[in-house]
Amino acid sequence: MKTLKISEAVVRRLPIYLRFLNELSKKNVHTVSSQDLGIKLDLNPAQIRKDLAYFGEFGKKGIGYDVDYLIEKIRQILKIDKVIPVVLVGAGNLGRALCNYNAYLKDNMKIVAIFDEMASKVGESINHLKVKPMSELKETIQGLNIRIGIITVPAAEAQNVANQFVEGGVEAILNFAPIIIKVPSEVRIHHADFTTELQSLAYYLDE
Amino acid sequence: MKTLKISEAVVRRLPIYLRFLNELSKKNVHTVSSQDLGIKLDLNPAQIRKDLAYFGEFGKKGIGYDVDYLIEKIRQILKIDKVIPVVLVGAGNLGRALCNYNAYLKDNMKIVAIFDEMASKVGESINHLKVKPMSELKETIQGLNIRIGIITVPAAEAQNVANQFVEGGVEAILNFAPIIIKVPSEVRIHHADFTTELQSLAYYLDE
Repeated sequence: MKTLKISEAVVRRLPIYLRFLNELSKKNVHTVSSQDLGIKLDLNPAQIRKDLAYFGEFGKKGIGYDVDYLIEKIRQILKIDKVIPVVLVGAGNLGRALCNYNAYLKDNMKIVAIFDEMASKVGESINHLKVKPMSELKETIQGLNIRIGIITVPAAEAQNVANQFVEGGVEAILNFAPIIIKVPSEVRIHHADFTTELQSLAYYLDE
Repeated sequence: MKTLKISEAVVRRLPIYLRFLNELSKKNVHTVSSQDLGIKLDLNPAQIRKDLAYFGEFGKKGIGYDVDYLIEKIRQILKIDKVIPVVLVGAGNLGRALCNYNAYLKDNMKIVAIFDEMASKVGESINHLKVKPMSELKETIQGLNIRIGIITVPAAEAQNVANQFVEGGVEAILNFAPIIIKVPSEVRIHHADFTTELQSLAYYLDE
């Protein structure tokens, strides 16, 4: 499917569709039209139909999408239909928030190990996980078959953590440190910087 | 400028350009080509030139962009050339992380007030700001001329907080709660959900 070269913008919308579909499913709503999705998500219905059509024919003309079927399909497309173990480095406020978030969401993306380089944090308990020392990072990644790493350390340490992720065999990284990190081209990196979110929001303020 | 209808994707890239330009400026680099920007940011140089050309002629053929001039221009475009006061509701781990982040970045987007509905959190000090009770939210927004609000409360409370932001006169909201919030069309809302970041990353894992 990846040979189709789906744009990143489309991939980034899929979790948003999924979130809303999950809400509908919880409310026992069984079908939804691209119009309804569009109103709720502030997107053009044609755009939604086009996005989903990249991956198959999921809707029925005049009826719409079967909510639970579409949930299942999007989860398959995003490869979150099975549990994906995730590692997090940086047990500060943000790291803790992410772990709590993760536990709350009961998602398939599971933070299964937390690391910190500060000796005072090692051994602390966050959501039933004990913070481990960095010296155990590589063996943990390999032992638990971890494929995604999250970086929540200060900017100055982020590249070093990314390097250790890559050495350990992590395939994708979500970086929260406010710095651009370089990784080999076969590793996918997303920068999730709050500042960029806030700054792009400021653009929309009236003069 | 807004009459041009710049796409959200372009607006979201501007802070990313800005971040890298700031790094260059700190290193006393004075000019940069769209090629260099492209390599560093993993974007097509033509895309970068096109993005920036929406807002004016900033580059010189054969020379590139003047780093400090482009920083100044992007800051103007994003309206972060002056201080923008920001309010945050939800003094949990995530709220704290954002406040620390904000102080660290010395950005113009300044979190100037923090609120929480839990009496036990009111009065706590986070980065020299005392957590205030929700009863003071509206008067604080109006008194400090706050235009942007950040939501870091649990999902069940998020819509209620957004409503209060809107009543207070906030123009743009960054929501971290894992739920879709509805606001009047004149208010801009961005949903910054970690799950969607993580889920879109999973797509890029090999089978």
